[in-house]
Amino acid sequence: MKTYRKELWFNVPTRRAFVNITREVEKAVEESGVKEGLVLCNAMHITASVFINDDEPGLHHDYDDWLEKLAPHEPASQYRHNVGEDNADAHMKRQIMGREVVVAITKGKLDLGPWEQIFYGEFDGRRRKRALIKIIGE
Amino acid sequence: MKTYRKELWFNVPTRRAFVNITREVEKAVEESGVKEGLVLCNAMHITASVFINDDEPGLHHDYDDWLEKLAPHEPASQYRHNVGEDNADAHMKRQIMGREVVVAITKGKLDLGPWEQIFYGEFDGRRRKRALIKIIGE
Amino acid sequence: MKTYRKELWFNVPTRRAFVNITREVEKAVEESGVKEGLVLCNAMHITASVFINDDEPGLHHDYDDWLEKLAPHEPASQYRHNVGEDNADAHMKRQIMGREVVVAITKGKLDLGPWEQIFYGEFDGRRRKRALIKIIGE
Repeated sequence: MKTYRKELWFNVPTRRAFVNITREVEKAVEESGVKEGLVLCNAMHITASVFINDDEPGLHHDYDDWLEKLAPHEPASQYRHNVGEDNADAHMKRQIMGREVVVAITKGKLDLGPWEQIFYGEFDGRRRKRALIKIIGE
Repeated sequence: MKTYRKELWFNVPTRRAFVNITREVEKAVEESGVKEGLVLCNAMHITASVFINDDEPGLHHDYDDWLEKLAPHEPASQYRHNVGEDNADAHMKRQIMGREVVVAITKGKLDLGPWEQIFYGEFDGRRRKRALIKIIGE
Repeated sequence: MKTYRKELWFNVPTRRAFVNITREVEKAVEESGVKEGLVLCNAMHITASVFINDDEPGLHHDYDDWLEKLAPHEPASQYRHNVGEDNADAHMKRQIMGREVVVAITKGKLDLGPWEQIFYGEFDGRRRKRALIKIIGE
């Protein structure tokens, strides 16, 4: 069995953003030498997500509006977590979008459907944060 | 280490439906010969889910109502993604229900709790779509 | 390849609660002897979650309020599932918070970010329920 570990670093200049990381995850799979196995990719921070969906700007705009409706940032005072913080909403948005994805590796490639793209979802940016890639297989 | 890969195909006649795929995933585990390991089962499309919950029609009706309340299909014009499409809501419903499940395999069987059943959740049907099963273990 | 399996049992005295199980999962990783691999931790019941977020009481209070807003417990009659049951809302809350987490194991330790803590989320307590830990690696 082989394993491989890699971190991806982000410093998103806005509070919220979606960053396509499919190519970085593919690259890690190539580096690992794993031909058949699984890759876990997870946010290492609790106000961010890794998720799979479409790379379409209209949809990303819709996601942002929708998450704001389900868990509004303002007023910050509506959340008890916001004592010296203002990111309680980010902890909620991340639960809806999810912490992690697990993707199959088949014949040395990410085994994704035709429109599946992997994103880092930032909900409390403007600071250095990480995602983890862990690969196991052979 | 053994690995095994299988696709499940669907062509749901309605826009939305929940399809119990537990038996198909069990069958794939048997075919794999894996006695101890993990099975990943994920939608390969970004307007569908694989999730685990109860096989109870009243609950499935409740899920459908609830997802429509959180991310309504109509009016399609409320979403920027809907330019030549009308499925933005399906991308949202799928994020709530999730893309994938990972289930333990123990002594050659799916290691599920008493009421856990695996479902394919379709939110934009009436076309051929797939789920992926990937098994690793030994 | 090594595998290891362990169940965690709960009997939460209230309907809803969040229980930090990070130490129990770490202990299972130590017991497994696995140095590099993956750990799956999932609720075995369909009205409970395993999720990763912050161990901060204000946030947990916010989560409880927010989940009640998105999927209210009362009136029980609003859900078709509630025939002889009153837990339909718990099936919905669990979908938002998720069934499972997959965490990397690196150098024999849980490979978590600085604030990541693993929780059992109970949404229909006052009975004995379980979470499953399954570890694979070497």
